[in-house]
Amino acid sequence: MTGGDGHSSDEHRKKGHQAPVREPLAVTSLQNERIKAIRALEMRKERKATGLFVAEGASIIVTARDNGWQPVTLLGLASSLESGVGRGLVQWARAANADVLAVNEAVLGKIAAKENPQSLLCVFRQRLAPPPQVRDMAKGDVWLVLEEVRDPGNLGTILRTLDAVGAKGVILVGPSCDPWSRECVRATMGSLFTVPIARMERPQFLDWLKQWPGDIVATHLAAAADFRTVSYREPVLVLMGSEGPGLSDELTATATRRVKIPMAGRLDSLNLAVATALVLYQVRGPYLRIES
Amino acid sequence: MTGGDGHSSDEHRKKGHQAPVREPLAVTSLQNERIKAIRALEMRKERKATGLFVAEGASIIVTARDNGWQPVTLLGLASSLESGVGRGLVQWARAANADVLAVNEAVLGKIAAKENPQSLLCVFRQRLAPPPQVRDMAKGDVWLVLEEVRDPGNLGTILRTLDAVGAKGVILVGPSCDPWSRECVRATMGSLFTVPIARMERPQFLDWLKQWPGDIVATHLAAAADFRTVSYREPVLVLMGSEGPGLSDELTATATRRVKIPMAGRLDSLNLAVATALVLYQVRGPYLRIES
Repeated sequence: MTGGDGHSSDEHRKKGHQAPVREPLAVTSLQNERIKAIRALEMRKERKATGLFVAEGASIIVTARDNGWQPVTLLGLASSLESGVGRGLVQWARAANADVLAVNEAVLGKIAAKENPQSLLCVFRQRLAPPPQVRDMAKGDVWLVLEEVRDPGNLGTILRTLDAVGAKGVILVGPSCDPWSRECVRATMGSLFTVPIARMERPQFLDWLKQWPGDIVATHLAAAADFRTVSYREPVLVLMGSEGPGLSDELTATATRRVKIPMAGRLDSLNLAVATALVLYQVRGPYLRIES
Repeated sequence: MTGGDGHSSDEHRKKGHQAPVREPLAVTSLQNERIKAIRALEMRKERKATGLFVAEGASIIVTARDNGWQPVTLLGLASSLESGVGRGLVQWARAANADVLAVNEAVLGKIAAKENPQSLLCVFRQRLAPPPQVRDMAKGDVWLVLEEVRDPGNLGTILRTLDAVGAKGVILVGPSCDPWSRECVRATMGSLFTVPIARMERPQFLDWLKQWPGDIVATHLAAAADFRTVSYREPVLVLMGSEGPGLSDELTATATRRVKIPMAGRLDSLNLAVATALVLYQVRGPYLRIES
């Protein structure tokens, strides 16, 4: 986050001043340059330009911290920053030399989500994983490929499921909705910070795919095999297509297993996050146990 | 939809005139009373007061028609009303004595969803099913209970899954998000028109529950049984709780089977629609087959 030029009276630090702020900086103006910069992160183009994004809520920020992420700016109501969990997060932010901003209700109201607003927010730097090395794959490894996923709520929910099944990560192929958008971050419930996200363009992906040693699984309406009855050769790569159009013919053609999720209803489709979860639980099933 | 008082010049019909309109009524003003009344349905309190709701998109409207729903008002761009599918819907609307409104882009832009807007919309009357008769339950029947579901996207996705698995319907217990909201209707992809929705308050539900002849299944973090290994006694009633707090202790106590969905990740929860789908596919599994 750039420091801004101090247009408002609550702007105490000189630009370029590197020492950590010991006390949270009180900010009560929406004209404050830091606040304007954080608000601008609601726009995808601004997230793209800065490489930053916002996560909202103490529990998701704690997940980020516990998984080794570094804060750029921590922001919240003074009362929240002084709470038990808030104090720990302020210490963590100071140690990372991050700004800590104490805002009032008016400023928070303009930055936080309208629905179920949170009183602690944190700016992070986006992190994409490099494409995984196929030669490093172990037997039980599962990677998910999402081709042109459109809905950030679906993408966030899928990241949450990937965490739950212990999959290795996701590869976004082609144009995709933004994993760093508010809706996606929120839907992940923190798994954005635990599940590696890689990106590839389709030609690069088709090339990478050739080395895959196990099954490449695609769900397809015309497939004859029930996804519950197939024995999957590990490691498994699961391909899922876009909401609506589904997986492209080009990617479907690369699958070594085409399977179908049976449906008994009047319609013939499932939500993408639901279909993905059903397949992931099937493929990762043998590795999932209730701990007692 | 009430007819309004004809403030705009494109309002040709006299209030109370009962003969069906043979040509779609052209409406180009946002001040038109019919348009204002439809726009007002974006608000829950207006949907509650009128008992009406809006569905968007030709395919979802066709699903409604094919499942015996009657339109109150059909509305769209003139070009869409004159398309192949549009003409069929106009005929259907006329047969039901419903208003048919041809609007321009400006009016449509104010009524349709901002994201992925549709050019055909239809107003319907909400329909709640009565609480199902327990004595009528057959062996393979599955009903879902959602206690205090909050997120309309989740509710819509769950309705879609209920259709896919051929469940009998859903019972909303306690305060719930609105199944007739835009977000929910859209997420159902039409299954709102195929899956019965009943509502009960908690005391009524707890009383109704006593007659249930098969298993009552609740997912619970502290359960010892893996949901995939249990043999469910049919008919099955599946209880799912609210996002976040989960199922109340009171409802959990009524369960004859407490099961857990295993998780291998760093976090310990799944999205409600995902968890519900996993349980429903398990419970209805024996009845689901790929048609070949």
